[in-house]
Amino acid sequence: MVKEDIFRSLKDDDRVLIRNGGEGSTDKAFTYLSGAVGGLFENSSIVAGKEGIKLYVYSLEEETAKATGLDLEVAGSVKQMNENLQRDLKGIRKIGLNYDSMTVNLFEETKKLLPGAEFFDVSKNIMEARMIKSAEEISRLQEAAKISSEIYSEILSSLKEGMKETEVAALMNYRMMQAGASGVGFDTIVCFGANAAEPHHSPGDRKLKKGDYVLTDYGAKYRDYTADTTRTAVFGRATAEQKEIYSVVYKAQSESMHMIKPGINGKLVNQKSYDVIDATKYKGRLMHGVGHGIGLDVHDHMAFGRSDFTIKENMAVTVEPGIYIPGFGGVRIEDDVLVTGQGYRMLTVAPPKDLLEA
Amino acid sequence: MVKEDIFRSLKDDDRVLIRNGGEGSTDKAFTYLSGAVGGLFENSSIVAGKEGIKLYVYSLEEETAKATGLDLEVAGSVKQMNENLQRDLKGIRKIGLNYDSMTVNLFEETKKLLPGAEFFDVSKNIMEARMIKSAEEISRLQEAAKISSEIYSEILSSLKEGMKETEVAALMNYRMMQAGASGVGFDTIVCFGANAAEPHHSPGDRKLKKGDYVLTDYGAKYRDYTADTTRTAVFGRATAEQKEIYSVVYKAQSESMHMIKPGINGKLVNQKSYDVIDATKYKGRLMHGVGHGIGLDVHDHMAFGRSDFTIKENMAVTVEPGIYIPGFGGVRIEDDVLVTGQGYRMLTVAPPKDLLEA
Repeated sequence: MVKEDIFRSLKDDDRVLIRNGGEGSTDKAFTYLSGAVGGLFENSSIVAGKEGIKLYVYSLEEETAKATGLDLEVAGSVKQMNENLQRDLKGIRKIGLNYDSMTVNLFEETKKLLPGAEFFDVSKNIMEARMIKSAEEISRLQEAAKISSEIYSEILSSLKEGMKETEVAALMNYRMMQAGASGVGFDTIVCFGANAAEPHHSPGDRKLKKGDYVLTDYGAKYRDYTADTTRTAVFGRATAEQKEIYSVVYKAQSESMHMIKPGINGKLVNQKSYDVIDATKYKGRLMHGVGHGIGLDVHDHMAFGRSDFTIKENMAVTVEPGIYIPGFGGVRIEDDVLVTGQGYRMLTVAPPKDLLEA
Repeated sequence: MVKEDIFRSLKDDDRVLIRNGGEGSTDKAFTYLSGAVGGLFENSSIVAGKEGIKLYVYSLEEETAKATGLDLEVAGSVKQMNENLQRDLKGIRKIGLNYDSMTVNLFEETKKLLPGAEFFDVSKNIMEARMIKSAEEISRLQEAAKISSEIYSEILSSLKEGMKETEVAALMNYRMMQAGASGVGFDTIVCFGANAAEPHHSPGDRKLKKGDYVLTDYGAKYRDYTADTTRTAVFGRATAEQKEIYSVVYKAQSESMHMIKPGINGKLVNQKSYDVIDATKYKGRLMHGVGHGIGLDVHDHMAFGRSDFTIKENMAVTVEPGIYIPGFGGVRIEDDVLVTGQGYRMLTVAPPKDLLEA
């Protein structure tokens, strides 16, 4: 169990306290440690140590929490929740918190709730544990990637002149959920034509025209784990230049991906895509990291960028180079891979070698 | 402009610094202050003062940021981003941060980035400003509520025996996006039968049977603003008990809602639903706050609970009492209202007086 890594540096009587804030401030470490599927768990907590894990939730989430099979205490009020935590942490001197997620105000409140305790940061332990996926996590990611890949060809054949980007995004989300996704891991990106030059474009009212690039960046969520894949096609006949850009990005992605194996520095995987693209007339047109970890978050952890990062077995990462030309459009190709003992295996279905025309 | 409230307690040379973290740690105050629609803006920042607002973004988001018309500086690296902030905040002694959103680690990093500055918390100012909606915010919420209401009758008529909860959720999301939503404000909740007893149930594989309650809690997102509405119906013929529970919840919601006007304490609006429900044999079966603010977040701020909270003109709030009976099911009715000078007006379309049979 990789989760135990979180506790490796703890003494026997130390504890880890995960406290969710309200909306937008819940901690994915709660989902990770509890294994709860679904639920919001706003203002819920976990106390964990070498001996085990206990959940503290409100009655709203009692049923979802019970399904974890973990030790559980249900509170009916903020006062009761605070008293439960104070009682169970009484006498505990050293308490680890997730400083990467806890807000300054919740930290101040926690200090007041537990006077006398000494707090320390366990965010690195949590992140390092989350990077290495368990068999269960891998099977969820595999399913999320499978659903995401499966729907693509039908989406391409549904494209019609005059469709809006938002309509295509809506259809993609619908098909993923029909195929078994519990939702989408992030807002689906659909870009037509010149909009594809903007990596984080939000789908809008632009209508599909013949000759447009159609860039889709999306991922199914399956039991809280998220795939992340990007495909670029052309609606109608592609020009020579559109095809050429695609070929360069395809080459960059293949060459980066083939370097992946345990022990390699992610910086080198990143650099390879830059080397391929910067050796062409598209030099300078890639300006983002070439990949990241996936898991409970769509950007679960850094993986391929300018900083040192060692790739390890059972990491799940994306590889996503792109070329972006303002006013013209862009191509990005993104796939999800699992790092194996010797190299990697793909979770998404491999991208087409040549630019697809829909 | 209510946004100016944020700066009311600042001296002329004070500044507010909003710093987004990475995924899951971006601050809605960034969206609020910038007015940017879409974009992720991970690790982007805002420096704001009485004189104006400046955005600091990475090249990934340059186009989306430009659309705001605000002063803008684009960085190509973390180093450059940090240098830009250091240059523009040089000599500024007092810097307000949003302690409700900033993580402990980002706070520590900010202290190192800006040595010598004195930091203070502006989270209350931001929250109080966000509570009172501007005309533009109201029109977005109105549209989000309209889309959410519009799709409901078609959803009811699409129900078929054997459908899964997840299928209904997928269809609802699709219809909202087809009707103009940019996405959903939160994961759509669909509960059949006994699952309706759990307020935060995640849709699953349960198949629809005749006689099941069908509880749907959902909201369209329109230009980043989120509606939040709940409807409960029965698939097939409703029993006398199912109808009775609905009537009690309907009465609770109506009576709470009719109390809404500027100056009233939200605690009284909350208590009214408890009074109505606790006077019946369903005493004790409501166990959550009866409403909350809506806006950029689906739970934008507290509104109706056990604590003191004064309702003010141009707040947008939901009213959502429910009755939950484990093993049997539950009814919740939720609508969005805007507080007006004298009382309120509904943003969603009023709920049916009698339990609908689909």
